[in-house]
Formats: sequence, C-alpha cells, structure tokens
Amino acid sequence: MAKIAVLGHGVVGSGVCEVIEENKESITRRAGQPIEVKRILDLRDFDDLPYRDKFTKNIDDILNDDEISIVVEVMGGVSPAFEFTSRALQKGKSVVTSNKELVASKGAQLLALAKENNCNYFFEASVGGGIPIIRPMHLCLAANEIDEIVGILNGTTNFILTKMIRENMEFDTALKLAQDLGYAERNPAADVEGHDACRKICILASLAFGRHVYPQYVQTEGISNITLEDVAYAENWGGVIKLVGEAKRLPGKDTIKCLVSPALIHKESQLANIDDVFNGVLVRGNATGDVVFYGKGAGKLPTASAVVADVIHEAKSFGTSTSLTWADSSENFVEPVEALCEAFYVRLFGASRAQIEEAFGAVQFLSRAGAEADESAFVIKPQPVQKTLDALKTLEDAGVRVCTKIRVADC
Amino acid sequence: MAKIAVLGHGVVGSGVCEVIEENKESITRRAGQPIEVKRILDLRDFDDLPYRDKFTKNIDDILNDDEISIVVEVMGGVSPAFEFTSRALQKGKSVVTSNKELVASKGAQLLALAKENNCNYFFEASVGGGIPIIRPMHLCLAANEIDEIVGILNGTTNFILTKMIRENMEFDTALKLAQDLGYAERNPAADVEGHDACRKICILASLAFGRHVYPQYVQTEGISNITLEDVAYAENWGGVIKLVGEAKRLPGKDTIKCLVSPALIHKESQLANIDDVFNGVLVRGNATGDVVFYGKGAGKLPTASAVVADVIHEAKSFGTSTSLTWADSSENFVEPVEALCEAFYVRLFGASRAQIEEAFGAVQFLSRAGAEADESAFVIKPQPVQKTLDALKTLEDAGVRVCTKIRVADC
Repeated sequence: MAKIAVLGHGVVGSGVCEVIEENKESITRRAGQPIEVKRILDLRDFDDLPYRDKFTKNIDDILNDDEISIVVEVMGGVSPAFEFTSRALQKGKSVVTSNKELVASKGAQLLALAKENNCNYFFEASVGGGIPIIRPMHLCLAANEIDEIVGILNGTTNFILTKMIRENMEFDTALKLAQDLGYAERNPAADVEGHDACRKICILASLAFGRHVYPQYVQTEGISNITLEDVAYAENWGGVIKLVGEAKRLPGKDTIKCLVSPALIHKESQLANIDDVFNGVLVRGNATGDVVFYGKGAGKLPTASAVVADVIHEAKSFGTSTSLTWADSSENFVEPVEALCEAFYVRLFGASRAQIEEAFGAVQFLSRAGAEADESAFVIKPQPVQKTLDALKTLEDAGVRVCTKIRVADC
Repeated sequence: MAKIAVLGHGVVGSGVCEVIEENKESITRRAGQPIEVKRILDLRDFDDLPYRDKFTKNIDDILNDDEISIVVEVMGGVSPAFEFTSRALQKGKSVVTSNKELVASKGAQLLALAKENNCNYFFEASVGGGIPIIRPMHLCLAANEIDEIVGILNGTTNFILTKMIRENMEFDTALKLAQDLGYAERNPAADVEGHDACRKICILASLAFGRHVYPQYVQTEGISNITLEDVAYAENWGGVIKLVGEAKRLPGKDTIKCLVSPALIHKESQLANIDDVFNGVLVRGNATGDVVFYGKGAGKLPTASAVVADVIHEAKSFGTSTSLTWADSSENFVEPVEALCEAFYVRLFGASRAQIEEAFGAVQFLSRAGAEADESAFVIKPQPVQKTLDALKTLEDAGVRVCTKIRVADC
C-alpha cells in the first residue's frame, strides 16, 4: 500500500482523488500495490465530501507523517509550493507535480534536491495535460539526439486562433467566448501573452538539452496582435497561424534557439490540424525523425491522469531516477533572437513593391479579398532576424507603416 | 558497462549497431553506463565491417557468455527467433525485440518466461517503428482505463492509399511504386492483406486489455479491393479511406471488438491526415480522452532507435517489470464481427433507391463524377453487422451486384 498526500484540492487535486478512486482496480494492478490518498492540504473547508476527514490546513501533518511516501503538489504558483516541495524532498518523500511555473523556474534545483535525498521529482502533468510527453521524450527517445521541439502548448490560445481561422471571429470575441466556456481566465494574460507556453517549452528544452532553460531568457510574444487580415494572408500563403514554442539545437554552437511566438505553419505540417483546445508537440530526433504527440492539453481529468501515472511510476520505482533530470545552468545559453535565421511574414502599408524588394530581396507576395490600396503582405526568405529588423526600420524611417510581422515555422 | 548481443544483422540489426555507435555519449548518460555490442549473430559474412570480429554463427556463443546481459532479437519470424528468445530468457538474459510476429503469436508465453527468470521481454519497436507507443501506453496512461485503440499501423498500405487519394493513382500502380521505392516487399501480401497491421493491433489490444489477443481470431481484411471509385465516394462523404486496426472494450461484455479493415475516416479525425508511410495511433482513455501518437512507423533508424531505447531502459531497470505484460488467454475473447454494431459504406449496381431504403432504412446517398447509370453508393447507419450482411444477401438474391462494402470508423 502506497500512501500519498495531495497539496491543493482545486481542479487538478480533486481530479487526482477522483481518478484514484475511479480506476482503483487497474491502478493497483499497474502499481503492484493499492494507492491511497491519506491526507489533503487545502485552506478551504470541504465538509460535504465523503473524504472530508482527510483534509488538513497544516503542511506539517503531511511532512511529519512517515507513512506518506509520495506528495502530489497541484497547488500551482511558486510560493508556497516551492517551500513545501523542498521540505517534502528533504524528508525523502518523492513529489509529483503539475505545476509548470515551479518546474520552469526551479526545476534544476528541485531535481538536484530529489537526487540528494534519494527520491524523485516527477512532472509529466506540467506539459501537455493528459498527453504523455515528458516520459516518452525521456524514455523512448533515449536513443535519439533530440534536435528540435516545436509545440502548440497552450489550449486557450489555440482555441482562440481556431475560432479566428475557422469562423472568422475577431480576437476579442473569441477571447470572450473562451472565457465564457471556462477555457480562459478572467485575466487571460498568462495564456494570451504566451507565458504559459513559455514555461512549457522551457521544461521540454531543459529535458531535451540537459541544462535548465530559464523563462526569463526566452523571448515570448503572444497572440493579441493577430488580426483576421493576417489569418486571411496566412491562408493565401497556404497555412494557418498558431502560437508555437520552439527549441532547437544550433549546429556548431553551444547555444540553443528557444522562443515562443505566433507562427505561420504550412497546411501540410502535422501541427496545422491541431485545433481547438488540443495541444500537439513535434519532437525531431536524429534517428526517429518526426514524432508527434497530440491530445487534450488541459482539463481536470486529463491532467489528473498524468499526475496519477507519475504516482504509479513512483510507487513502482526504486530510488532516484538519475536521468529524468537536467543540470542547473548558471548562465543563459539561449541564443538572442536577433542572431537567429528566420523567415517572416510581413504586412505593411505605404510601400511600393520595388521598395519592398529593395529592402528584402525576392519575396513571396500574398493577397486577400478586400485588401486596402496601399497594403502589402509578403513572406521573406530565411535570413538573420537582425537584418529583417534593420530593413523594417529603414522602411519605417521612409514613412512606411509596418503593421504585423510573424515568423514562419519550419515544421 | 552493459554488454549486449544482436541476433540478426539485417536492416534493423545494423541500425541498432549504428545508433549505439552514433549516439554513444547521450546513451551512456541516459543509461547510466556505457552500452557495448559484444556479439552479433548472423549466418552471413560481413568481412568488410570494422566490427567483423563480433560476428558469430553459433547462438551458444551468446547464450553461454555470462557477460552478455541483454539480447536484441531482430531476426523476424517465429522460428528460430522463438527458440533463441526462450533460451535467452531461461538464462536470465533480458530480450529486446522488434519482432511483431513473435510478440503477437507468443507474447504471453515469453512474458511469463521472462517473469519466471526475473528478467524482461521488451517490444517497443514491434509497433509503430520509432513512435513511442508501447511504453507511453503502459506508463503514462497507467491511470486510465483504455477504452479504445484505433491505429493506422502499416506504412506500406498507407502510402498506397495516399497515392490513390491524392494522385488518383490506381491500386496496382501505387503498389508497384511502393515496391520500387523499397516500401513494399516483392511479395506484398503481409502488408496489403492486413496481416502486419493485425499483429500490431493484437499487441496493442493485449497490452490494453491484459489478455493475449491472438491474430487468428481477428478478422483481417486488406486493401487490394479498394478502387478509385470508392476513394471518390469517400471524398464526397467527407473523408478518406485508411487501413485501420481497431480494438475496443465492449460495455457490459467480457469480449472485445478487434479487427483490421479498410475504413472511411472523417476528414475532421486526427487520423485522416496521417499520410504516406507515416503511422498514427489514437488511444482513447477514460480520463485523458483522445491521445494520438504519430510518426514514421518503419525504417531502419526509427525502428533501431526504439530497440535501443528498450535496451537503455533494461540497462537501468531492476528485476522484472511486472506490469508491462499480459496474461495468456486460453480462449478467444474477441467478439465475432457479425455481432458488432457498425456503419458501412456500400457501393452496388442495379438497385433502385426504394430497394436500398427498404433493405437498410434511411441511408446517406453519395455521388461521384462519371458514375454509371445503375450505380449507387451510400452510407448506412450503425446496426448489427449480421443485419447488414443479411440485407446485402437479399439484394444480391434479387439480382443486385454488390461491389464494395467498407466500414465507417468512429474516430
């Protein structure tokens, strides 16, 4: 019998309790022993629940209970989750989490602490909700060098973009709908501005490349400036606009590419059809080629089931998993975006074709129904981002109004 | 240092040697120790290879070598692979395989033998080539009851169907092209008649439902009867024809649905866009919802990397994995197809609309350019297969020529 504690009885925490109860039989078979939720930490009262006796408001009731060998941290946020996780690991209790903010900001430190104390810090649920991605990347792609990861990592923004693309809905209307449906928070910044996707690509990049990639070094751009005009031009180009997180090994360099931004994705790409609240992650290995994982990136039961899978894994494991981990990186090893080589879609007003081609060389001009007279949209060939920025600056100095620039993804 | 032997130096076997050499550094880091290929069994001579000294033609050189702890069986076929695998397991050596024929026909027996001898029988590479599917299904979906699996499991037939759909190529021409490109064997029956897909769905179903599903009980239908007319009607219906393997828990029953057949898949399905030689597997869990795994289902390096991932896992593991396994099932527990409830697309000649509606109730009629005068194509609502077969028989008895019937998949 493995006894666990759950920190936080919100959406995911209550889902964990539910999945453990619901799938008791198969969990016992797969874990080799029954798994029981012994205590639940939450500051709120849940007097109506049949398992109300398990609740406590005092973390020490859990940390000092030697019967509890696994702690599930599903509180979210850095504080007090960081303190509680650290103390649990110091006591030799393994911790399973869905807290992407904490893993992205303190992962290396907590993984090292787990190793020191011969226990584990598992975080499958922190990326991709119910989609198995952390462990497949770690285990099954073990024989590959991972060269690149491209992911649609945030369901809320993907829902909004899908509505814009399929139903010609304005950004604000789509956001409002997402809020009404419970897909977006009242304050949607973390999703819409790309911070959530940024945390997730940092976790995947850290795991793939073995060194902690900190969110503050990753240039992050959201989708609030995307318009229906851009969506129309993307379609004319032969693709769709998605919010993607990308991490890539740079050949011959000690740095990596890592960024979050909207991007044009070609219709032929396996990521182009990942719509609504679904997530998809493309992992490019040197032996497997492209592998894509697809599924619901959020939601109570999918996320809870990923947490419980980690709990089962811990219940079966012996000592520390020494390889599902990465080292701290005191220095930033993310290449500045300006130095990357990227293709861009650009939309602007008041420039002649000749001016545009003088600035960017040969470009692919795009069209849309109802374009304004002085409007141009085009895709430029991959070149150093700084060169593109300089060219845009020169055009702006000449009175051109640059409206949008969106990366073209290579996936 | 973990020392391994490779049985068979064909496409996959040589790929295993290559991947282990190529990714030495990351493999050592991930396995926690270096991995060395000590011996290779093959009846052929490979005098030009730098590692020619490792070859032997005698299996006893491997089985009697106590330094060799892991045996990679990539010979294919049941004999002598079954004998060699059994003897290796009896010696306590773990075996890693890509041999789907052996796993599908003798899996339960070999898994039990591994358990008895406190070692492992791993088979990630037997399904989906380089796509991690066995282990993610086992580990990460551990907290789910798996209700259903639908997979495009054979790259050769998927390539042929893609050519038919996208380029309007006849079946025979597409098959010839697949053979010229090396995607199909000279004798393409195993692929084209669905036997390869059948072995794979049997392995996935055994793992998901915990009891061995034997290929001989699984009704298997290939794609050699699919015509461009059917492809056109499928498009009119709003989908594509794919060869799918399906396994499904039947609510309230002790049997499962398990079959391989061509099927109409709606364009909105995540499986509809899995084209060319790619494979895709949709796993439907009671908590995660739909999760899809996508990638190259075959090929030297993808398959080899899946084998090596299992080798790494074995090098790190302690004793038997007691749950990546299933029980033998002395009896067939696959529901007869006739008793299933399925929707069908039907194409026939010489029946009036009234006759068709009398036979099947309300149906959805389809159209195509250039249809013959007495040709009809339509989709019937889900109903017991026996009822559909009876209705078709009645029509045939009345002089109607039934040309094609293809299942409509629910995915």
